Amino acid sequence: MPDIFERSLAAHRETRGKIEIRSRMRLESPDDLSLAYTPGVARPCEVIAETPGAAWDLTWKGRTVAVVSDGSAVLGLGDLGPLASLPVMEGKAALFREFAGIDAVPIVLDATDPDEIINAVRAIAPTFGGINLEDISAPRCFRIEEELQDLGIPVLHDDQHGTAIVLLAALMNAARVVDIPLANLSVVINGAGAAGRAIARLLVCANTDDRCIPVGRVRICDSKGVLWPGRPGNDETKEELARATNPDGEQGDLRSALRGAHAFIGVSRGGLLHAADIRTMQPDSIVLAMANPTPEIMPDEARAGGAKIVGTGRSDFPNQVNNVLAFPGLFRGALEARATRFVDAMKFAAVDAIVAAVEEPTPGRILPAAFDRSVAVAVAQRVAEAARAASVCVEGCEALDATR
Amino acid sequence: MPDIFERSLAAHRETRGKIEIRSRMRLESPDDLSLAYTPGVARPCEVIAETPGAAWDLTWKGRTVAVVSDGSAVLGLGDLGPLASLPVMEGKAALFREFAGIDAVPIVLDATDPDEIINAVRAIAPTFGGINLEDISAPRCFRIEEELQDLGIPVLHDDQHGTAIVLLAALMNAARVVDIPLANLSVVINGAGAAGRAIARLLVCANTDDRCIPVGRVRICDSKGVLWPGRPGNDETKEELARATNPDGEQGDLRSALRGAHAFIGVSRGGLLHAADIRTMQPDSIVLAMANPTPEIMPDEARAGGAKIVGTGRSDFPNQVNNVLAFPGLFRGALEARATRFVDAMKFAAVDAIVAAVEEPTPGRILPAAFDRSVAVAVAQRVAEAARAASVCVEGCEALDATR
Repeated sequence: MPDIFERSLAAHRETRGKIEIRSRMRLESPDDLSLAYTPGVARPCEVIAETPGAAWDLTWKGRTVAVVSDGSAVLGLGDLGPLASLPVMEGKAALFREFAGIDAVPIVLDATDPDEIINAVRAIAPTFGGINLEDISAPRCFRIEEELQDLGIPVLHDDQHGTAIVLLAALMNAARVVDIPLANLSVVINGAGAAGRAIARLLVCANTDDRCIPVGRVRICDSKGVLWPGRPGNDETKEELARATNPDGEQGDLRSALRGAHAFIGVSRGGLLHAADIRTMQPDSIVLAMANPTPEIMPDEARAGGAKIVGTGRSDFPNQVNNVLAFPGLFRGALEARATRFVDAMKFAAVDAIVAAVEEPTPGRILPAAFDRSVAVAVAQRVAEAARAASVCVEGCEALDATR
Repeated sequence: MPDIFERSLAAHRETRGKIEIRSRMRLESPDDLSLAYTPGVARPCEVIAETPGAAWDLTWKGRTVAVVSDGSAVLGLGDLGPLASLPVMEGKAALFREFAGIDAVPIVLDATDPDEIINAVRAIAPTFGGINLEDISAPRCFRIEEELQDLGIPVLHDDQHGTAIVLLAALMNAARVVDIPLANLSVVINGAGAAGRAIARLLVCANTDDRCIPVGRVRICDSKGVLWPGRPGNDETKEELARATNPDGEQGDLRSALRGAHAFIGVSRGGLLHAADIRTMQPDSIVLAMANPTPEIMPDEARAGGAKIVGTGRSDFPNQVNNVLAFPGLFRGALEARATRFVDAMKFAAVDAIVAAVEEPTPGRILPAAFDRSVAVAVAQRVAEAARAASVCVEGCEALDATR
């Protein structure tokens, strides 16, 4: 059998892309045309002009998300540009359809300057009920996502928060298995990019003041070792992360940070660690090695070093940490609540739903299967509840939802 | 039965918009996921990064058009803004699907400045194989369309060219019925907006130097009467039109222009003309009164004034002049030829196909029915041929097409 890459290429060639647009109204007679188009369409237009919220009921807006990328950080392949990132965005759109019943539209942007990207997303925003930013390189992705929070529709960079949510759920169930409270847990994150920053911020409760319990100890490393405040070359993001995780300014490399830690979270590159490194951690350690396609350490080797629980991003090992557990339900819940933005309570609600999807976690099963379609439903429900509780839904949205 | 407007509103509420996204690949197993998404999707991404043209085969780009509006000239309703224009753009997308098998994505833009619109369209362009500009007010629409001609994909403002193409086809068949060669025909256009300018330019062969035969005499009027060079208040567009149609500077109002003319083309507002005005034209005159929903003159009254052939934009009278005869086939043909832009030869090819779709024109049938699905197929074929003949297809496109 040809390998997965050649089979994928052939499948793409056969279907000429993975998604298509279908009509939801019959268009078989002049009367159909008069209802769907002129002259009848004038009426829904007028209603929306008078009451903009009606667009959520009369158009696809209320069930539609744009999957937006500039192609600057495509998978592990780097800056391929917008056109070459289109297959990934189409794939994501197909997953939105299949897992959450959401209509997602890939939009790849010929833009490199963050302001150009921000302006383009602002311009197209009326078309959609939410924006999923995807595969945009760090640190540009941080400002882009931040400045778009006032759009009035939820905007989320999935490489940051989708990944962080699933990792946190994995970590919480793993901690249950080894029976260590989160507040006592010592975690080392390798990788200070989009995902590393987001997971670190969730672990230290950087962005929230309610129900969040900070993890005992977090160190975040990049290729130059542990982040500490004032470290030469720190950009704004790294300085902020260093202050949030390591205010005492402990220095060292990844290996020194690992010594005595309970958990390793790798969002960096493959083949970094060996069994000997895992041996310096606490016994029964947790290793979540997300680098793709080659994890930071292979599961066998991690277990040889004493790890009790090993997760990767791959489907061919146990404990696959896959964003598909989070993003479909996150956006589905946000759309159902007509949320105007994502707040941390919605992200924690998603974590809770994923955690709860595994009744009795074991070393071989800290997460539900990526193909378990009940997860998106559960995530959506919890996220919508959290949005309503946090009052980030558009005015009148609860009454509107109740009538559906 | 409730009127068409209330029925349309109810239909929109029932379906929550008129189009949806569907997946074209099966996503039922982990292997499916590996083919459509990670890790397999990396391969089509790499292939496109190496050979950008492969995007036409490996993604939806080659079969996808964006229907872009800022909502500044929605139907006859005026500047309703982007959100309220979404039902029209969705309707157009549904028509693209039904008549041409094209995947069309409505994109409504929160932008008013022409440069913002141009920048937004430039930014999203890699996603699509063509751009249909829609319901953008004149004169802004002229510069916007013009500046986007270098995008490398065909960009067309349908309110200009789609309308002009169908009107020219109607006029040609009407001229056949009354047996007057185009070169001898005297035509008055009322309305110097998007459609009026485009039809005038086609009639005088403003943009082309091959196979176009200028119509004998063209006068174009706006609310202040006949356009003439140097007329006080002429903007750039009107000055250019005045020079192209009326270099001798003949002055007068609509009524004086009509005297002795063979044909009236109205792209203005309803109820302007009466039977007495038609009586001043040549006997057996041609009246194409496109104002919606009320034509410039009602068909009965035009015939009472001596008109032999009357067309309107409405489906409840004979000779409906409807853009749906042109735009689906225009874009389908452009996509099939992988055209990089629309040239006039492609527009004339569309005119020819529509003209030829009526074998024996009669006063009651100068155009094919709007619901005749064979028209888009014929238009697409002629447009693709014209694109190839004019060498506006992307390099290697013919060889690529041949292998499909």
